Formats: sequence, structure tokens, C-alpha cells
Amino acid sequence: MKNSTEIYKRKTKKSFRFFEKSRKYHVNGVHHNIRFFDPYPFVTKSSSGKFLIDVDSNKYVDYWMGHWSLILGHTPKSIEKRTTQQIKNGWMHGTTNQNAVLLSEKISKAVSVAEKIRYVTTGTEATMYAVRLARAVTGKKVIAKMDGGWHGYTTDLLKTVNWPFNESESEGLTDEKHIISLPYNNLEKSLEILKTVKKDLAGIVIEPVLGGGGAIPATKSYLKGLEEFAKNNNSLFILDEIVTGFRFRYGCLYQTMKLDPDIVTLGKIVGGGFPIGVICGKDEIMEHANTSTHSKKTRTYIGGGTFSANPLSMIAGSTNLDTIKKKSNSLYKKINSLGDNAKKVLCQIFDDDVIITGKGSLFMTHFVKNNISQITNATDASSCDTKKLHQYHFDMIANDGIFFLPGKLGAISDAHSSADIKNIKKATERFVTSFKK
Amino acid sequence: MKNSTEIYKRKTKKSFRFFEKSRKYHVNGVHHNIRFFDPYPFVTKSSSGKFLIDVDSNKYVDYWMGHWSLILGHTPKSIEKRTTQQIKNGWMHGTTNQNAVLLSEKISKAVSVAEKIRYVTTGTEATMYAVRLARAVTGKKVIAKMDGGWHGYTTDLLKTVNWPFNESESEGLTDEKHIISLPYNNLEKSLEILKTVKKDLAGIVIEPVLGGGGAIPATKSYLKGLEEFAKNNNSLFILDEIVTGFRFRYGCLYQTMKLDPDIVTLGKIVGGGFPIGVICGKDEIMEHANTSTHSKKTRTYIGGGTFSANPLSMIAGSTNLDTIKKKSNSLYKKINSLGDNAKKVLCQIFDDDVIITGKGSLFMTHFVKNNISQITNATDASSCDTKKLHQYHFDMIANDGIFFLPGKLGAISDAHSSADIKNIKKATERFVTSFKK
Repeated sequence: MKNSTEIYKRKTKKSFRFFEKSRKYHVNGVHHNIRFFDPYPFVTKSSSGKFLIDVDSNKYVDYWMGHWSLILGHTPKSIEKRTTQQIKNGWMHGTTNQNAVLLSEKISKAVSVAEKIRYVTTGTEATMYAVRLARAVTGKKVIAKMDGGWHGYTTDLLKTVNWPFNESESEGLTDEKHIISLPYNNLEKSLEILKTVKKDLAGIVIEPVLGGGGAIPATKSYLKGLEEFAKNNNSLFILDEIVTGFRFRYGCLYQTMKLDPDIVTLGKIVGGGFPIGVICGKDEIMEHANTSTHSKKTRTYIGGGTFSANPLSMIAGSTNLDTIKKKSNSLYKKINSLGDNAKKVLCQIFDDDVIITGKGSLFMTHFVKNNISQITNATDASSCDTKKLHQYHFDMIANDGIFFLPGKLGAISDAHSSADIKNIKKATERFVTSFKK
Repeated sequence: MKNSTEIYKRKTKKSFRFFEKSRKYHVNGVHHNIRFFDPYPFVTKSSSGKFLIDVDSNKYVDYWMGHWSLILGHTPKSIEKRTTQQIKNGWMHGTTNQNAVLLSEKISKAVSVAEKIRYVTTGTEATMYAVRLARAVTGKKVIAKMDGGWHGYTTDLLKTVNWPFNESESEGLTDEKHIISLPYNNLEKSLEILKTVKKDLAGIVIEPVLGGGGAIPATKSYLKGLEEFAKNNNSLFILDEIVTGFRFRYGCLYQTMKLDPDIVTLGKIVGGGFPIGVICGKDEIMEHANTSTHSKKTRTYIGGGTFSANPLSMIAGSTNLDTIKKKSNSLYKKINSLGDNAKKVLCQIFDDDVIITGKGSLFMTHFVKNNISQITNATDASSCDTKKLHQYHFDMIANDGIFFLPGKLGAISDAHSSADIKNIKKATERFVTSFKK
């Protein structure tokens, strides 16, 4: 590790100076807390295809892929072309524009619950308004989320994100009591907890693959059980598919499990890497937000915002979905198979030292510790050796030009190939050898 | 009015069809509630300079200007050029990038309170995190805002935005009790209310020109009085300059009044029309959000988000500030003077029937009703004939190709000229004449 740090420092001298400047102006030098890693993160000047390029001109094969939003890799030509045209035609109309309709035609065809759609600018906003809708529609207050569930920094869901889950996530929160938390994938215990609040339960919100919490798929029976409980108690069942939407197939993950959510939130891939958040919901739910049919007394007042449905994000998203759809069979087959291959390779090298979680093109390495034998929830994931995972990822950044955001899951894009998995294999073998020394 | 509606419908036939599609997919057809107006809003296909162009190829001289974010007009060449280059170099690195430093160098020089800066993606996010910081830093809970103050759709400030202020803004809110509201520009009454909560007062948040609430500048003595109260009670004084920052001068409005806020939020102009929100604060305040020096137990956990500090928004903002600075003397002189001229012209035509509020390049027409003789707060503004204002604005859209978002204030940009004010004059004279018929 020490050696890797020296190598890293030697090759990122300009990044060091830039990041010192960034520290001068910015809290901890970053604008998203997870983007910081020791001793300092490299500073990027460009990205292209599978690569991030830093200010020292180092190239990294990128598995962070813009917070997993870039399924075609960086700067795919189709989006580059259409967004460049759009810039000439205005990036900010501030009005209803035709591009929003183009994108919604595609989403509504692919996502059954999207009877009505509202675009906002971030995932944080989308989940905030989903919660508000759930409370408005049901007239109840409590929202159930998962231990380790991440739905952005919204006040309404900022609880039990990071281990230890019994500690508050932040100073300055005033209404945590209306958020309760469930043990992911443990239906029996989850139902026990839900029963204690069922009279005031507005909704349950869950990622079908726990993202930041450890790349852990929910079992179908768990999701089904939660949905059933919600429906039996007049609460809403909300799926946060911001990470999983259009990640494994052209559409959402819930559709492969015959689930029937009331609201689904989207983001990331459906914006092609441009700022977007999406609330998809059934007509009867979304109608509560209609300010033409509801007076101030009865409406649910949700965004929008200045940048909502801006023509640039809309055309980027629409073009991304077009491109994905054109190649969807081969695309998903390719990246899912590369993901499976990566998992297999890592299991072979690390043997019993790791558990690899994930699904399709998403995968995450967990270094076993505390006698963990399976990872089904964020508590299991947090019990693993997260420090060693950081070391492993950092080691590959320094020595191999391979970038996973330290500690996080990786995402394979269409810009990656089997040669890249071979390079992960080589790098991992080198890490294992150097670690044993 | 009926005649205007017929004219409008005749010339916006494609918009009608597009908006019907938009209604099919989107709640009330829009993504920001205020973008809807009767009978249906025109749908834009492009924007350029001072113009919005709709799908029927009608051109409108635009005074909405992207929610007042476009001070140079639509698609200024400098931003077009740099953002087009940036698209080639990647719009979503998901990492620390050099463009954020470029923008912060400019903001920190121009805005004294910006000892530390954090970029988020929207104004809604910026004010949400400002509130969280205030509560964290003070260990107190209550936030005071203004009657008619608009700080985005964030749960933490969604109260007393629209008249009647004693009615909740939305179903589905659970913690309105920690927000109290003050009568804008009435220091005596405001202090009375503040005194009742002073032990638990985390902060006061105010726009120095009430934007959505009626384009009403706060008096210096009012702002000073609130600031003094906040400081004497260990509460934070937060200025929301999302609309006013870089609108009247190269910097913030508070700096012309020797105010000393703890936090200032920015957005709109500093992003050049690309998605941005900014929290500027003093070192000691912002340090609470540092996750390298604070553990989970003591940190204030604020965004960021996936799109925070994305290289495209950062270069757009940086280029916008460069361009503004280069021409800043002439730019602000020009648009402020056009604004003054517009106000003068409208006063002459409408005589005692209206009061024009605003400041510099921002202006808003209020049709007098209920014996209102001055407009110093949102209650005064809400007592005016808002229906007639909608008529006036719609009438100009239909007949004159002049676009104010019906009912809202207008913003003059560098793309406008004195000929445009003459056209507002002509249109207004026509409106007055037709109205008298």
C-alpha cells in the first residue's frame, strides 16, 4: 500500500496541485462526499469511451462510469452529436419543450408504471417528491426504507444509510422519527417492524438492488412480501430504480419479477449522464400533483425546478434510450456476460477471501471478515473488510490505471471488452501477490 | 381576452397538438407547476438571443429568460463554444474536475462570504442543505422564512410560499412546525415573532429581492435588523441570492448593503443556464460538512449528488462569469437602465392602475385592487388583481410575440435593446385600449 501511494503521488503531481486548490475553495475538496479518497483523488480533464483522463494525462479504465450513469461509456457519439445540436438550439428554454415528449414516449412504452411522468433534475429530488406523494395520497406519515438504502441527500430519507445504522446520518435533521428502517432481504423481521407502524405507514421505498449499500439484489420473495404488505395496508410501494432502471434490460428490473409498484423513481441512465431525476407513477397517484385540478388546499406540491425537463437533458436521455434500444439484445447480453465473467475471475483469484455481489454488469468485491459467509444485506456488507477493499481499488488506480471509486461497486459499459476483464484479472493477481509479500 | 385566446389558438396549432401529447405523459403537461398557463402553453423548439421559438415557428421576445437565469440572453456564443468543446471532453466525469476550480476562483473573488463553496445541482438542493447546516451549526431547529419567500420545493422550506399563507402549500408534509414565517419588510412584527422562538431559532432565510413573491426589494434596514437579531441569538443569517446573485452587479446584492450573512445560496446566472446550485459559506460553518475531519457522529451530511460539479455546468458557469466580467460595467448599466425605462414607460401608460415593483433589470407589474397603495410584501402583491396581470401577459403573447411567463416578473438580458422596451410600450398601449373597449 505504501508503495502504491508513492507510485500514485509520483504520477499525479498535477492532480495534487489542483486538488490543493480545490481544498482551498471546497469543503474537503469535493462536491459529493464519496468522491474523496486518500491521499487525494486525481483530478480529471476529460473522459472518452472507457477512459477517464486526469490532468497529468494518466488514463484510467473507468468502472465508476459517472456514478454508474453511463451505460454506453463516456461520450458516445450519438449523444455527443444530438446534444451539440441542442446547444445551438438552446439549453434552457424554461418552457414546455418537445424533447420532454420524445423521452416520455420511450419511458412510458418501456416502464409499465409510468402512466404519468414528472421530470426533476436529480435523483435526490425524485425520491423527495415520491415520499411527499406517498404521504399525500395515503394521508399517513411514516416511510419505511432499508438499512443501507441510499436515496440521495433528501431530508426525507436521510437515515440508516451508512453503518452503524443506529447512528444519525447527519446533524441538523429534525424529523427522523417518521422514517423507519428494515433489514434488507429479511422478510420476517421486516414485517414485524412494519406491523408496529402499519396504521401510519405511508409507503415503503426500496432499491431492487441495494446500490451504495453493497450491490445486493433483493430476493423476489422479499420484494413480493413488502409489496403485499403495502397493498394490504393502503400504503404505497415505491421502487427506487435510479441505479437499476435500464441497467439490466430495456426497462426496469421490477418488470422481470411481476411486481406492481405505485411509484418508480429513475435517473442516471435515462438522462445519458445529463442531470435528471424521474418520478413515474400511476395516473391516480400522480394526479394529486396536478395544480390545474387541485386547489392549494388539496394539491401535492412537487417539483420541477428551474432545470426540470431542460431540452439538453431530455435530448440526451432520449438519444441514449434510442441507442440502447437499437442494440439492446447485444448490449445487455454483452455487459451482463462481462459482469458475470468479472465475478467468476475474481472468485477464482481471491478464492474464499471474498464474496462477490452484484447483478449483471454491476459487481462488488467484499473481503470476508467477522465470519461472514453470505452477503444478503448492508449489515453483512458493512461487516466485511472495507479497508482492504479501499486498498485493492486504490492499488489498481496507482499501478494498473483501473478506476473503481474506492470502496464502491463497479459498472461495466458498452465501451468495455473482455480484454478489460483480463486486465482486471492481471491487476488482481498482482494485488494478491504483493499483499502476501 | 376572448379575442386573444382565438388569435393564440390560431397561431399555436402545433403547440396544441404537442401539448396534448405532453398532457398524456405528464401531470398537467408540465414539469414545473408555474410553466402551465391557460388555455395551454406554447411548446418550444429552440431559443436564440432574445427569442424563444415555438413548434409553429412563432418567435417571442422572451422576458422569462429561463427562470431569469440567462443574463446574456439565450445561447450566447461564448458559452455555446465552451460547452460544445466540453461535450467532446466528457459531460459526466463523476470525479473532481478542473472546471469546478475555475468557477470557484471567480465566485470566491466576487462573493465575500464564499470562503468555502459546495456545488449541488439545483437551487432546491442548495437551500435544503443551507437549512441543514444552520440546524447543525446551531443545534437548534426552527427556520424563519418570509411570507411569499420561495426557495424551491424542498421539504424544509415549503411553507407560506403562495397566498393564502395560512394554508399549507402541499399535502404530505410532516414537519411544518419547525418553519415559521415573517411579514417581509415589517421589522417590528418580524422581531416580535422571532422573539417567540429565539431559543430554538437555527436561522433566518430571506431573498434580498422577493422573487416569485412579487419582485419586491427588502429595505436595507429590514435586512440589517434581521441580521442583527440572528447574530444576537446565535442563529444563522442566510441570504438566498439564487435570483439576485450577479443580477445587478458582478457579485451579490448583500455586498452593496454591508451585510454579513453566514451562508449565501446561488444558482441560475452562475451556471449560465446549466443545472447548478451553490452553497457559499464561511469556513467555520462549511467545515461542519467536511467528512474527512468529522465522523458520522458529528458531521453534517450534505450533497453533492451524481451531477454535482459536473464539468459541463462548471464550464458554462465559469464562461458566463468571464463574459459578464469583461463587459460588466456596460452590461449592468445597460440592463439596469432598460429596466428603469420599462418601469417608467409602464407607469406612464397605466397611470395609477398599476404599481411596478422590481430592481434594476427585474420588474413586475401589479394591477391595483383592494385599495393597495404600495407593495412592500407578498400580502400586498397577492391583494392585487393577479387575474388581470395574467390577461395582460397572455394578451402580449398572443398579439405581440412578447413573452412574460403569465403572472411573473420579467428579466431583461443583454440580448434586449431599447427597441424592445418600445415594443412593450406599444403592446401595453394596445392592451389598455382594447381593455377599455
